[in-house]
Amino acid sequence: MPVELSLIATTLDYEDDGKHFGHLLVPNSNNLSAWGTLMVPVACVKNGEGPTMLLIGGNHGDEYEGQISVLKLLQRLDPAEFRGRLIAIPALNLPAARADTRISPIDNGNMNRSFPGHPRGTITQRIAHYVWAELMPRADVVVDLHSGGHSLNFVPSAVMHELDDAGMMERTAAAVKAFGAPISLMLRELDPIGMLDTAAEDMGKLFISTELGGAAMVTPETISVTDRGLDNLLKHFEMLPGRPALPNTPTRMMNTPEGAFTMSRGNGLYEPVVDLGGEVKAGDLLGRVHFLEEPERAPVPYRATVSGVLYCRRVQGWTAPGDTLAVISADL
Amino acid sequence: MPVELSLIATTLDYEDDGKHFGHLLVPNSNNLSAWGTLMVPVACVKNGEGPTMLLIGGNHGDEYEGQISVLKLLQRLDPAEFRGRLIAIPALNLPAARADTRISPIDNGNMNRSFPGHPRGTITQRIAHYVWAELMPRADVVVDLHSGGHSLNFVPSAVMHELDDAGMMERTAAAVKAFGAPISLMLRELDPIGMLDTAAEDMGKLFISTELGGAAMVTPETISVTDRGLDNLLKHFEMLPGRPALPNTPTRMMNTPEGAFTMSRGNGLYEPVVDLGGEVKAGDLLGRVHFLEEPERAPVPYRATVSGVLYCRRVQGWTAPGDTLAVISADL
Amino acid sequence: MPVELSLIATTLDYEDDGKHFGHLLVPNSNNLSAWGTLMVPVACVKNGEGPTMLLIGGNHGDEYEGQISVLKLLQRLDPAEFRGRLIAIPALNLPAARADTRISPIDNGNMNRSFPGHPRGTITQRIAHYVWAELMPRADVVVDLHSGGHSLNFVPSAVMHELDDAGMMERTAAAVKAFGAPISLMLRELDPIGMLDTAAEDMGKLFISTELGGAAMVTPETISVTDRGLDNLLKHFEMLPGRPALPNTPTRMMNTPEGAFTMSRGNGLYEPVVDLGGEVKAGDLLGRVHFLEEPERAPVPYRATVSGVLYCRRVQGWTAPGDTLAVISADL
Amino acid sequence: MPVELSLIATTLDYEDDGKHFGHLLVPNSNNLSAWGTLMVPVACVKNGEGPTMLLIGGNHGDEYEGQISVLKLLQRLDPAEFRGRLIAIPALNLPAARADTRISPIDNGNMNRSFPGHPRGTITQRIAHYVWAELMPRADVVVDLHSGGHSLNFVPSAVMHELDDAGMMERTAAAVKAFGAPISLMLRELDPIGMLDTAAEDMGKLFISTELGGAAMVTPETISVTDRGLDNLLKHFEMLPGRPALPNTPTRMMNTPEGAFTMSRGNGLYEPVVDLGGEVKAGDLLGRVHFLEEPERAPVPYRATVSGVLYCRRVQGWTAPGDTLAVISADL
Amino acid sequence: MPVELSLIATTLDYEDDGKHFGHLLVPNSNNLSAWGTLMVPVACVKNGEGPTMLLIGGNHGDEYEGQISVLKLLQRLDPAEFRGRLIAIPALNLPAARADTRISPIDNGNMNRSFPGHPRGTITQRIAHYVWAELMPRADVVVDLHSGGHSLNFVPSAVMHELDDAGMMERTAAAVKAFGAPISLMLRELDPIGMLDTAAEDMGKLFISTELGGAAMVTPETISVTDRGLDNLLKHFEMLPGRPALPNTPTRMMNTPEGAFTMSRGNGLYEPVVDLGGEVKAGDLLGRVHFLEEPERAPVPYRATVSGVLYCRRVQGWTAPGDTLAVISADL
Amino acid sequence: MPVELSLIATTLDYEDDGKHFGHLLVPNSNNLSAWGTLMVPVACVKNGEGPTMLLIGGNHGDEYEGQISVLKLLQRLDPAEFRGRLIAIPALNLPAARADTRISPIDNGNMNRSFPGHPRGTITQRIAHYVWAELMPRADVVVDLHSGGHSLNFVPSAVMHELDDAGMMERTAAAVKAFGAPISLMLRELDPIGMLDTAAEDMGKLFISTELGGAAMVTPETISVTDRGLDNLLKHFEMLPGRPALPNTPTRMMNTPEGAFTMSRGNGLYEPVVDLGGEVKAGDLLGRVHFLEEPERAPVPYRATVSGVLYCRRVQGWTAPGDTLAVISADL
Repeated sequence: MPVELSLIATTLDYEDDGKHFGHLLVPNSNNLSAWGTLMVPVACVKNGEGPTMLLIGGNHGDEYEGQISVLKLLQRLDPAEFRGRLIAIPALNLPAARADTRISPIDNGNMNRSFPGHPRGTITQRIAHYVWAELMPRADVVVDLHSGGHSLNFVPSAVMHELDDAGMMERTAAAVKAFGAPISLMLRELDPIGMLDTAAEDMGKLFISTELGGAAMVTPETISVTDRGLDNLLKHFEMLPGRPALPNTPTRMMNTPEGAFTMSRGNGLYEPVVDLGGEVKAGDLLGRVHFLEEPERAPVPYRATVSGVLYCRRVQGWTAPGDTLAVISADL
Repeated sequence: MPVELSLIATTLDYEDDGKHFGHLLVPNSNNLSAWGTLMVPVACVKNGEGPTMLLIGGNHGDEYEGQISVLKLLQRLDPAEFRGRLIAIPALNLPAARADTRISPIDNGNMNRSFPGHPRGTITQRIAHYVWAELMPRADVVVDLHSGGHSLNFVPSAVMHELDDAGMMERTAAAVKAFGAPISLMLRELDPIGMLDTAAEDMGKLFISTELGGAAMVTPETISVTDRGLDNLLKHFEMLPGRPALPNTPTRMMNTPEGAFTMSRGNGLYEPVVDLGGEVKAGDLLGRVHFLEEPERAPVPYRATVSGVLYCRRVQGWTAPGDTLAVISADL
Repeated sequence: MPVELSLIATTLDYEDDGKHFGHLLVPNSNNLSAWGTLMVPVACVKNGEGPTMLLIGGNHGDEYEGQISVLKLLQRLDPAEFRGRLIAIPALNLPAARADTRISPIDNGNMNRSFPGHPRGTITQRIAHYVWAELMPRADVVVDLHSGGHSLNFVPSAVMHELDDAGMMERTAAAVKAFGAPISLMLRELDPIGMLDTAAEDMGKLFISTELGGAAMVTPETISVTDRGLDNLLKHFEMLPGRPALPNTPTRMMNTPEGAFTMSRGNGLYEPVVDLGGEVKAGDLLGRVHFLEEPERAPVPYRATVSGVLYCRRVQGWTAPGDTLAVISADL
Repeated sequence: MPVELSLIATTLDYEDDGKHFGHLLVPNSNNLSAWGTLMVPVACVKNGEGPTMLLIGGNHGDEYEGQISVLKLLQRLDPAEFRGRLIAIPALNLPAARADTRISPIDNGNMNRSFPGHPRGTITQRIAHYVWAELMPRADVVVDLHSGGHSLNFVPSAVMHELDDAGMMERTAAAVKAFGAPISLMLRELDPIGMLDTAAEDMGKLFISTELGGAAMVTPETISVTDRGLDNLLKHFEMLPGRPALPNTPTRMMNTPEGAFTMSRGNGLYEPVVDLGGEVKAGDLLGRVHFLEEPERAPVPYRATVSGVLYCRRVQGWTAPGDTLAVISADL
Repeated sequence: MPVELSLIATTLDYEDDGKHFGHLLVPNSNNLSAWGTLMVPVACVKNGEGPTMLLIGGNHGDEYEGQISVLKLLQRLDPAEFRGRLIAIPALNLPAARADTRISPIDNGNMNRSFPGHPRGTITQRIAHYVWAELMPRADVVVDLHSGGHSLNFVPSAVMHELDDAGMMERTAAAVKAFGAPISLMLRELDPIGMLDTAAEDMGKLFISTELGGAAMVTPETISVTDRGLDNLLKHFEMLPGRPALPNTPTRMMNTPEGAFTMSRGNGLYEPVVDLGGEVKAGDLLGRVHFLEEPERAPVPYRATVSGVLYCRRVQGWTAPGDTLAVISADL
Repeated sequence: MPVELSLIATTLDYEDDGKHFGHLLVPNSNNLSAWGTLMVPVACVKNGEGPTMLLIGGNHGDEYEGQISVLKLLQRLDPAEFRGRLIAIPALNLPAARADTRISPIDNGNMNRSFPGHPRGTITQRIAHYVWAELMPRADVVVDLHSGGHSLNFVPSAVMHELDDAGMMERTAAAVKAFGAPISLMLRELDPIGMLDTAAEDMGKLFISTELGGAAMVTPETISVTDRGLDNLLKHFEMLPGRPALPNTPTRMMNTPEGAFTMSRGNGLYEPVVDLGGEVKAGDLLGRVHFLEEPERAPVPYRATVSGVLYCRRVQGWTAPGDTLAVISADL
């Protein structure tokens, strides 16, 4: 049994020149449609020689900067002015995006913990597998656009990993800087297994991720960072003419030091006292958890254990034990 | 049958001097607890002569500025420095607040469309009725703190209604200005029926509402506006010593003119192009709806039909027909 | 408080000549959209003098002949060849139609037991009230198109009620015959309260209903009966030129005599042995219920208690006690 | 519109002599069965002259002593040895009984807060209305058999209310004593509105209730108390020959004094330290709530505020604020 | 650990002569029954020498022809007139059949994508494994009876696969013809993995499937085709005396050519214009999708790309992108 | 990829002397908390030399004796009087305990069929894997405290398995007797795969389980048996000073002979006629199933097929086919 073959077909030929829109056809037999199909939009722009970029939005459904900027890019790209090939999926976890959720309402699948996927697994695993088996091998560069979703908010940033291959790391850092986000974050993932990131890096691809905002919304600023970042990346890889347009304030190279993460220890309402992007010193108050069901009880303070910038914060007022309340990044 | 009597008991005596914390005991017979009770925290601070203020947070569960600022106020109030009486409920729709939702997960009740409530109705209706029958009659001033919740985001503002009684309107406007939010909004409600607002005004109470932020989160800025606003109100009514501390930029008196509301007409992703609080002219582009499932389709622009300030915007990237995308306010 | 006023606005002016499409705007505040609106499509075709017909599809969401035929009629109607006014709502219970269910997934409302509705009630009650308060008073003729939905299947039929007013009954019978369905059914409703039918008749309107097929599907035959029926009705009322086009086989005037209904008494699988539309005699076997969990147990036969035509049957194989398995109609 | 008429039909004639089984036919239109019916079993035993007893089990679905004992009584009753009339419904809230829940899974209706019901209301309200409009008026004696359900456990007891009519109170007390449960409880209900009890008493019927065990189960002992109690009642009213068979230990006449109820104030695990039926003195430890998510935190003790017998306790280990943990009864 | 052993026991001995009814006992520990068991009926009829047929109904829960015909066959079979052995399971996915759904409500398992199953997997996988490990090896012939379920409707047909083994293909074709359905379909499955079909064929068994109707209902015609087909198969394999009774219109040998499948591309209402079983030519209109939420928008036509017979159509009026709307079969 | 490493971190150092409370930090990314963590309390008490006992409560969420007794033990243990090391988790399936359910509401995982777990599996599998990979190897003795949960009730008992290693069996039997429950049960598991028991025994650990009551509640008696049993075990292993305190009635060594289990065959209400712990003879009536929906039908008796003690019974009145109604144990 050739179990390694994907059951997902596509209506696109990735070798065709020009700008083409099509779908991944994901078999989805269910109670409402015995022979039903999930149709995930995919587009391909190709012209002449040049690198192939695989561009992904909506890996998590409630992260919208990437989805919108990919749609905008596909609208404005003129194949005649383009070189190489762009394969773009605006919403990889489409059922989640339609439901405004992080994970898929069909199978509760977290796409970014489902790689390399499985061709006979859940819908989420099948989509992950198709990307891994059919699209990544075609790519030179893989870009996966994340934001914070409903529960987290980030200073807009491009993200890369610490890699063992120094040359690849240098080339990746150059691309991340070209993206031009306010922060460029260097991560060593503690739990890389199952991520699209790892799948791409293990295949030897140049890989870039982002964290571009959050609260399940977009702002003119975060969309502007994303639009410019995508243009810059295409220029950096000479797929579009011209040079990356960098902002006046140069990107800040940072990482997340030991102790950067602050986790909630109680049920209550979180009041942050530092603005996203604000400078903090170790010992500074980050916020308080108030006790809605026990108003007589004093709130619990949460303090920074390292110095740096408030890179990420929890969104919803309500918090439960184990929620990430704050992440601090520090200059490299 | 004395159907007008509430079945809700309380552990507080509202005539006691000092600062006291207690609960509303709402009978809640269900599958998990045949003789169960919903316990809604309530507090009373009383000292000497002076007006009674009824202060409500969490009328909608996912609006957090009010809930947190009420909790903070209750922690810091010293009865010895206080005059009059404050009856405060940090989260009126407590089940919704615990679930991070607008309406109650118990009975799908929208508290702010449930007044004057019913003593034998749903849990939400019973709580509304208790406020209407037991607390409002004791109050001189009623303050109900709203924000945007998961789906809307507002420029922080205090809100009052156009009233038939010119004297009451003048006294209310003075209090709204004393609150000191960036915007003071004058509304004529199109659909006032069922609101706590209407119930309070019909009873002849001085009533103030707010819209203090949104996206189901709080920021240091929105909490700061709220904390200061509550202190200012208490000072304005001489329940705390001192004079209201107004910000350097004076509050802007505004209303929402005909045509202020922009509603989504399609399923897609909303990209705003104007910042919350930004100035717009009639005809300006407010945003676009992109088609995630049809990337080849051009996005639909949404334009302002009146000039003013972008007072409110939709939060989530995903939108469906009928969602409010933008509200514009204009200077009076 | 003017509680009798609907909160539903419309984007149409029913006095405008020509063919216009618009929406009912039903306020629908919920967790996903605080200031959301349900947009129910409505259309108006008007030209010159003539009667007003109110035409409703999708009173129950999973009954599709009416919905499709109304859409087709709106596409093909040319106002220039039309006289009078047609106000048409293709899917009155739109949330149910989108969910392929009989009743509304928003509030579990059965639209056809919600009349005359309430302007401050559930979404379903509000829509019913708008029809009752705003549309019915404008109409001379009200047509409400039903089918069997997921659980029932009917011989296509137009339906009228036995009325106390002999003149109205005669005029209604003439219209029902003009519709030209295979069966024209004369009903005395046992439980008319809450129905759109009753609301229209109580207001003195000429009212026609239908049962046009079922199993939540349509067939070329049932759509053809419906399309022709609507054309015929418009011709009958001289809103379109020409005379009703009646089928070769004349419609059969029938009713449902005492004993016409057969109800399931057990849990099992229903096997009908008579075709829909087949002739049966009292005592004939109609079908059997087989015991899926007790294969060793003999099936239970169900027999006709009256003679006539098998007018309606249960769709799903699985049945539970109390399900309607069969309805027999008899010639008048 | 004759809105006071029930839409519920029955297959029984309550005037027929002999033992007959039938159903209440409750219209239940839903997505799975457009013309569906809920069939609630009812039985009638009648012979000669004598009083009419209306006997109800399963008012709450997860209270089983009543349901089982009514079924057993119906099996063993021989009309020839019987006088008068017994109308018995083994499970009044049948959908709840089938789901092993207190309230109805169809409409979340608590049957015992739904009286006198409504003929056009929810399924639960319609059933309540039928009992109130059609069955209660036929009855001289109404018996409603309760137990504790999933969340409470009781010492088996018959229950009556303090009544204004001294003669009725005396006759009721005689019947309660004849039932012969270990405890006979005299209650003044704080919240009688909506109860079957109140509906029966307001109609001038002799009314008896019970609390016969709990934890959603039955034991040989609790069934034995119930079986004997029903026989005794029928003998007491001379509907069966012979005299009530009283246990060796006479029933204890008790009530629930002020302070009898102990309510949980925290989330945790409840450990009772007194056996059900055990003697307690004011100040005695009743139990402790342990903190499963904070093992380092000392448990909170709950103490009796009155002396008496532990009449009722919470079942499930897990408890939340507002749950009833213990009820103490005291000798009259 | 002997992980290959099934945990499913049975109350039948498949070696016993005569007609016996029993159960598969599938361990099903859940919140309502810690030591619970799912009891799936199974029957065995055995007499003398002869082949073993494994006969399966209800592989998908909402496909009823097979379930009913197997129950009828088990009722009428007289072991004395029978030769060989029949092992029959009327509803293999019993939880789905009881819920009137395609897939299992317990674990969302699609039984026909779960083979060869797993002895420690989900309930669905465990049942599949038992069939594969315990029943298939005993069988010479495997018959799996499918229909269209809620979402599809088929011309009644027996189905076989193109096989590599010419002899087996010839013997299978002979059996399929003996079944005598209006259409005999020859398929090359594109996605055979996980199907019961594949499991049986890989084990070298003669395998026959069917598509016998749909819309989750049965008709006198489809049951009649199924009843006769089962009798014919037993006669064909000389397990019953006599010769297959073929219909006057001989079965039509067909397949599904490239382009046979038409898939929905939009959200709307599907109106078919060709009857099931009707002849179509390439280019013919098959149906239209109407836009319920945009009545002003013209419907989208769907046309046949190949000529043949309309073998299958979508049932529900409502359709979403990716639904199968039509399948065309062509004569071999 | 080092897939064998757990992603679960802990805040405890199991090598620290003294009494320490901490958490297992289980990554739990979900829609409400993108970077969320499930915090499972764990405690460690260590002093000097001595064996390590791993003590588990709440393997099933609705079994409370173990959870409460572990909490009480952790409160009262004084490290100074203790020798060796106790690693205790009061509620291993914490999400289930908080939901008062047997299995996890997060992933429907039955913890006791999830061993040895998987470090990248579901939440339940990850917790099981952590216990297997990180805690069990540290232990000499593993104790897993079970009760009956919502659906079963047991005579309090300690349980051990028949083991192939005679020496280990003897040492285990000595510990089980030291526990001092009314019954000590010797089991040969029919389906040991996936159990914590098997995982511990396969690793060569001395393993003891229990069944300490049920109905999702605790009683003073069952808690007393558990508290004493834990003290006795610690004394038996010389981790606490003193000798086990055995009850006056010595524990009864029993097993469950062939035929011990009685399973429901119908839908109805179960009436037990034997008390838990009562003596039964083969042929004795154990109980009856009554037919709530068919009161005219005689109940079905269930009889014992072996003699012994009623060791376990079903709790809820409602029963379905396949439920365990009774288990009988016999003296060894």
